[in-house]
Amino acid sequence: MIDQDRTPHGRLSDFQSVRALSEQICEPLAVEDYGLQARVETSPLKWHLAHTTWFFETFVLKPFMPGYTPFHPGYEQLFNSYYNSLGNPYPRGQRHLLSRPTVAEVYDYRHTIDRQVLDLLDSSHCPPEALARIELGLHHEQQHQELMLTDLKYNLAQNPLWPCYREARHTPSETSGLRFLSQPGGVLWIGHDPAQGFAFDNEGPRHQVLVQPFALASRLITNGEYLEFIQDGGYSRPELWLADGWNQSLSQNWQHPLYWQRQGAQWLEFTLHGLQPLSPELPVTHISYYEADAFARWCGARLCTEFEWESVASQTAISRQGLDFAWLHPTAATAPATLHPLQLFGTTWQWTQSAYLPYPGYRATSGALGEYNGKFMCNQQVLRGSSCATPPGHSRASYRNFFYPHDRWQFTGIRLARDL
Amino acid sequence: MIDQDRTPHGRLSDFQSVRALSEQICEPLAVEDYGLQARVETSPLKWHLAHTTWFFETFVLKPFMPGYTPFHPGYEQLFNSYYNSLGNPYPRGQRHLLSRPTVAEVYDYRHTIDRQVLDLLDSSHCPPEALARIELGLHHEQQHQELMLTDLKYNLAQNPLWPCYREARHTPSETSGLRFLSQPGGVLWIGHDPAQGFAFDNEGPRHQVLVQPFALASRLITNGEYLEFIQDGGYSRPELWLADGWNQSLSQNWQHPLYWQRQGAQWLEFTLHGLQPLSPELPVTHISYYEADAFARWCGARLCTEFEWESVASQTAISRQGLDFAWLHPTAATAPATLHPLQLFGTTWQWTQSAYLPYPGYRATSGALGEYNGKFMCNQQVLRGSSCATPPGHSRASYRNFFYPHDRWQFTGIRLARDL
Amino acid sequence: MIDQDRTPHGRLSDFQSVRALSEQICEPLAVEDYGLQARVETSPLKWHLAHTTWFFETFVLKPFMPGYTPFHPGYEQLFNSYYNSLGNPYPRGQRHLLSRPTVAEVYDYRHTIDRQVLDLLDSSHCPPEALARIELGLHHEQQHQELMLTDLKYNLAQNPLWPCYREARHTPSETSGLRFLSQPGGVLWIGHDPAQGFAFDNEGPRHQVLVQPFALASRLITNGEYLEFIQDGGYSRPELWLADGWNQSLSQNWQHPLYWQRQGAQWLEFTLHGLQPLSPELPVTHISYYEADAFARWCGARLCTEFEWESVASQTAISRQGLDFAWLHPTAATAPATLHPLQLFGTTWQWTQSAYLPYPGYRATSGALGEYNGKFMCNQQVLRGSSCATPPGHSRASYRNFFYPHDRWQFTGIRLARDL
Amino acid sequence: MIDQDRTPHGRLSDFQSVRALSEQICEPLAVEDYGLQARVETSPLKWHLAHTTWFFETFVLKPFMPGYTPFHPGYEQLFNSYYNSLGNPYPRGQRHLLSRPTVAEVYDYRHTIDRQVLDLLDSSHCPPEALARIELGLHHEQQHQELMLTDLKYNLAQNPLWPCYREARHTPSETSGLRFLSQPGGVLWIGHDPAQGFAFDNEGPRHQVLVQPFALASRLITNGEYLEFIQDGGYSRPELWLADGWNQSLSQNWQHPLYWQRQGAQWLEFTLHGLQPLSPELPVTHISYYEADAFARWCGARLCTEFEWESVASQTAISRQGLDFAWLHPTAATAPATLHPLQLFGTTWQWTQSAYLPYPGYRATSGALGEYNGKFMCNQQVLRGSSCATPPGHSRASYRNFFYPHDRWQFTGIRLARDL
Repeated sequence: MIDQDRTPHGRLSDFQSVRALSEQICEPLAVEDYGLQARVETSPLKWHLAHTTWFFETFVLKPFMPGYTPFHPGYEQLFNSYYNSLGNPYPRGQRHLLSRPTVAEVYDYRHTIDRQVLDLLDSSHCPPEALARIELGLHHEQQHQELMLTDLKYNLAQNPLWPCYREARHTPSETSGLRFLSQPGGVLWIGHDPAQGFAFDNEGPRHQVLVQPFALASRLITNGEYLEFIQDGGYSRPELWLADGWNQSLSQNWQHPLYWQRQGAQWLEFTLHGLQPLSPELPVTHISYYEADAFARWCGARLCTEFEWESVASQTAISRQGLDFAWLHPTAATAPATLHPLQLFGTTWQWTQSAYLPYPGYRATSGALGEYNGKFMCNQQVLRGSSCATPPGHSRASYRNFFYPHDRWQFTGIRLARDL
Repeated sequence: MIDQDRTPHGRLSDFQSVRALSEQICEPLAVEDYGLQARVETSPLKWHLAHTTWFFETFVLKPFMPGYTPFHPGYEQLFNSYYNSLGNPYPRGQRHLLSRPTVAEVYDYRHTIDRQVLDLLDSSHCPPEALARIELGLHHEQQHQELMLTDLKYNLAQNPLWPCYREARHTPSETSGLRFLSQPGGVLWIGHDPAQGFAFDNEGPRHQVLVQPFALASRLITNGEYLEFIQDGGYSRPELWLADGWNQSLSQNWQHPLYWQRQGAQWLEFTLHGLQPLSPELPVTHISYYEADAFARWCGARLCTEFEWESVASQTAISRQGLDFAWLHPTAATAPATLHPLQLFGTTWQWTQSAYLPYPGYRATSGALGEYNGKFMCNQQVLRGSSCATPPGHSRASYRNFFYPHDRWQFTGIRLARDL
Repeated sequence: MIDQDRTPHGRLSDFQSVRALSEQICEPLAVEDYGLQARVETSPLKWHLAHTTWFFETFVLKPFMPGYTPFHPGYEQLFNSYYNSLGNPYPRGQRHLLSRPTVAEVYDYRHTIDRQVLDLLDSSHCPPEALARIELGLHHEQQHQELMLTDLKYNLAQNPLWPCYREARHTPSETSGLRFLSQPGGVLWIGHDPAQGFAFDNEGPRHQVLVQPFALASRLITNGEYLEFIQDGGYSRPELWLADGWNQSLSQNWQHPLYWQRQGAQWLEFTLHGLQPLSPELPVTHISYYEADAFARWCGARLCTEFEWESVASQTAISRQGLDFAWLHPTAATAPATLHPLQLFGTTWQWTQSAYLPYPGYRATSGALGEYNGKFMCNQQVLRGSSCATPPGHSRASYRNFFYPHDRWQFTGIRLARDL
Repeated sequence: MIDQDRTPHGRLSDFQSVRALSEQICEPLAVEDYGLQARVETSPLKWHLAHTTWFFETFVLKPFMPGYTPFHPGYEQLFNSYYNSLGNPYPRGQRHLLSRPTVAEVYDYRHTIDRQVLDLLDSSHCPPEALARIELGLHHEQQHQELMLTDLKYNLAQNPLWPCYREARHTPSETSGLRFLSQPGGVLWIGHDPAQGFAFDNEGPRHQVLVQPFALASRLITNGEYLEFIQDGGYSRPELWLADGWNQSLSQNWQHPLYWQRQGAQWLEFTLHGLQPLSPELPVTHISYYEADAFARWCGARLCTEFEWESVASQTAISRQGLDFAWLHPTAATAPATLHPLQLFGTTWQWTQSAYLPYPGYRATSGALGEYNGKFMCNQQVLRGSSCATPPGHSRASYRNFFYPHDRWQFTGIRLARDL
């Protein structure tokens, strides 16, 4: 977990723990697993390991380490994700074609960069801008840690042998009932308060928003509830769907969430723990915005907005951290319903009906780091909360995740809302 | 212009004038021109003529005309645009393959339906719901009238003979200077007031929005100003672009607005009046949201939000109606700058940085007509105002037009804004 | 029919009759029908009318008519089909976008060129090379006449109103039995004998080929016989298919010949005379090479080679001319079987298992006319004979037609053969 | 090299050496290299190792080993290449997604199957059909050995680090002059003589073909000669190209052979020994049929037919075996010209102008093994000879290799011919 101790010393300890977690994620992998890329979006884990290292090399060591010599002249291009101002990145969809550098060479790259960043942190003259970029680099790596798990899951799922990432067992408890919790709305402060530690630039500027009274669901939608939607013909009734969603669903022949499959009368779900019987108590996950929206319409509700969500979450403690190797999958909301909604964090990301747009007054920073967030503010939907694959310490009420409405490979779920 | 006289008698006169305008638009056409469809989005004019007629047949005559016999059993499918609840529409991209019914048969269809709608309006027992649907049908037809002109323009532009839709000449006057007009913002009412006549359902419910202080450009951006962006390398500097826009621009090899072309040292622009020299005084048009956004970033401004725009427009008289056969192209803003922005209406649609989303409390109506607007509320951007191709009477401050950010074939333009 | 009288006078009469037939083909069309193009291969009939005229203008009038002024400066590009040495042809798949020139303007183009070609023919100084090119132009136009009918058929078939090109009725007689006629083979002369009148360059040089003894089917395969193949699972048994054919069949979901459709228990076939009940007595047509080959394998036979076919056809009179407006569809082989196979000409083209390759010693002529045939000698299969849409006088034993193995929109059929 | 000793004992020794060579090919690989697949055609080497094993398991052990238990129930599908009669093969283009089984598990699979095949061979009761299938399986594996090298080359070439498969140096000697050697033609025997040992079914039946007199080039075309074609505008002159080739060349922006690249004024060539300066003395390779054909037309010659080639090769000793780890690239023809052409074998495959079609009387065997060759006899061109990547003992005069005319990733080259 990233500490709020923003001294070089605090950074040093954060750096070590965050960097270590990326390697822990890879522990169960065979060398062969590191290279998989089934779609343009699901990068090889080897590439993630290298790219997060490249980030520190490019944005910290090159500008701030006196006399720094690049580790390898080819890596600048190979492990650049999308920073056009740094040159032409290697084509995203072909990352699986890079058998070299090997896994061992990438670990060597990591460890070499690590040592130098630690040297810089340990020195008496680490400039504040370098410290700030190291902090950004750690949050950046945490984002990639979640992608490592979701990309790996997608890539393994193409193999009919159904490889199991880690063995695990989980007995879901019974889910608590679904209630709608009334909220007064009003003119509310939204966005990150800079006094409260790190946030990405897209979480600000903090500003006021007028929110109508509304009610928010006390928990996420379960597999069992989603099955009712399917059994009621949800995937064959265009009147429930957004037009783009309906076309997408037809063209991809969607009939159920991404990792579900039917074997005779039984539903199974592919997980990071292999094929598992589908539990009706667990939250539904790996659905697109289109499916979430159609489900909401089917049951006479709607998805919440990101402002509604944040206004509630900012008053709720983060009771559940995400990533736990013992069970890399959402768990049931078992607590009795209270005034506070459950599963805001650490379970599944929650599609909102808010498009991903800049907040009033938002400006991207100049230079290559200005490409981090701002240039994606079009065509995507905001997701709020965090998931069972989000690293500890990476959840906060103002966090704005974003994906295309057709994306399904993240741990996404459904949080309903209603007008009052 | 559609009257505000909402009696059967007022409707009768509106019906005649709106239906007549569609045919006036087609007057200069050769029979061969009616069938063109160069892209899935740019339907043949014959299809528009039939589909707007189908709308009255399907939603007025079939339910409200006792003993009504359909004009032709095949037309229900052929001329259904996207109403899935009415059956499987004929594939949108193949409308150009329908040489039958012929143009003459489609006019016969129009006139036959016209007579029966007029009979219904003229009768003493036209039910209020039928009246409401006729009103909707007329506004629907006005939307198609604008599409007829923009689709035709796109389709003719594929022909290297550069066919001229109507002969015209226009001498642009000098454009007034660009200023930014400060606005106080605050908690403002947004959306259509039902007491104020017809509006589409997506313009409501009327509700309050908190808007920060801002400044709005006094007029639209001109070709001359856009040329400076081009000459400054605007199309080759990824840092100015949204990521999706940059990819789109590369894949389509965009180098200038849709209808511009270069002949030696001279820029020309294809218009409904044939190829014309590009005038630097006229508003730039036929640009995507991506281009508008990149231009704004290039000059240190931003696009306005739909709420900012409406808050200003609702206090400004609609001084300029759109569609005028004498010059089917934007004209310059020649008036001296005042407190009120120029060119809000009747010139080009204005991309806003607002995604097309439902207003709080919005619900689509039930039945097929519920597919009119709501199902498109994803992936598109709101455009405000109206254009030189918008029929008279079809402009209003609450109007929400919407297109995909890559769309360029509408008369779209750039209205800048700034934070204060 | 093109006369063998190769004097200017004979050419004059040929020219008039061939040019007239193209217009007779268009007589039943509405103006709207002239512009249809459902696939890149199926050009608008207006384009055919103009291109065949362009051929005479480009290859006869421009080089041989002193002081000739082109009819229109834009037509050189618009109506060039594929002659790269004459400049960049207008994109083939976009011919349907050329509403201008109009149908009337294209007829004017035709008649203006006609008058000048006739003047040239009538003059005392028409050079022999001009005469030869006029002869080529007439055979070229005959090829397009067949394409006009097959393209039109394909394009009309996209319309669910099933437009009827010409009204007609036909009562098929009973088909004679299928026999295999033994042939001795040997070293045989193949290819056109230049002393025997006109032929395309790809029919020569005449040369010897060694052919093994074989047996040739006495007639074409019927719809009834093809139905047995379907009912025996022919479209779902990969072992019957070439690998490329099987993939094509899966990707296009082929279940029957191109224009067949099922209505309840009944099979119908779309024809140039509208939808007709499928007659089991008529030859099967509109099948790909893949389907023909799979059918042959299914019944333990094979398709013939082009040399086998020609060796038999060159000894058989052409008893049946093709194109007859009264019935633009194959007819049954009703004659009792004799020593000579039936339906070699005027019924359907017959896929051979010969790839379209140059004969030994073949060289394309230099200049643009060298692009006529030679550059297509790859990836295509030879078809022999002629069809019900082939103009009178255009059939001969040495004729080599060629299409891609997946093409189905020509009048193609199945002639079986067997090894002895 | 596969022995002609067709006893079980001879087979046993062949089996061991052929199986060993596949593993020797993989010796220099990192585990990561085994999984690459840059195009649907270029399978991962791990897959080749498993598929060639699957062949013995499926066609030898399952039918002929009493009480045989499959190694793994999932492998039947995973490692089936294209045998539809054995069930649905795993999608060809997704083989790179199979990180499991791992490389070690695949070697385990190989060795387990090897032991059992050796047991069968060693036993006193190995049936003749099993022996014949083992022989087929060995020739099958040899074909895959060549593919392993060409697939690997293609896959490594996607990496801008230009990985070197094996270090090597080679100093090309000067090439001998190009001459055309006259051949009398006549009625010649073509195809494999069954008395002469193993051949694939597509090399027979042996039959007579009439061949016109011709002249065959004394050696292959060199890089230097091909450079002249490039410098003479060969890639921008459509009159030199087949129509399909020209379109392919434009759409892929071909400007030179597959692995050539330009660095400033210097040409380089990617090889299995890394990037090398392009030597003008070496044979040009990795060109499509379209390029070979255009080159031939450019220099006033043509490609040979497969019958011309075989008639000469059947009278020429195979002086050069292929695959040699010391230099996995074509070498120059240095010998002085004689009556016999050089480089018929072991250098590059030679595109012929013959389409890949069945010989007269050819019938595929029944059952799954009937899918081995026959179903590919469409759309491909025959290549003759063998290449620098062909395993020793796999070359013969009757061998018919076949690829699509656009394929470039094999070691393909140009053998010219001329009419006499």
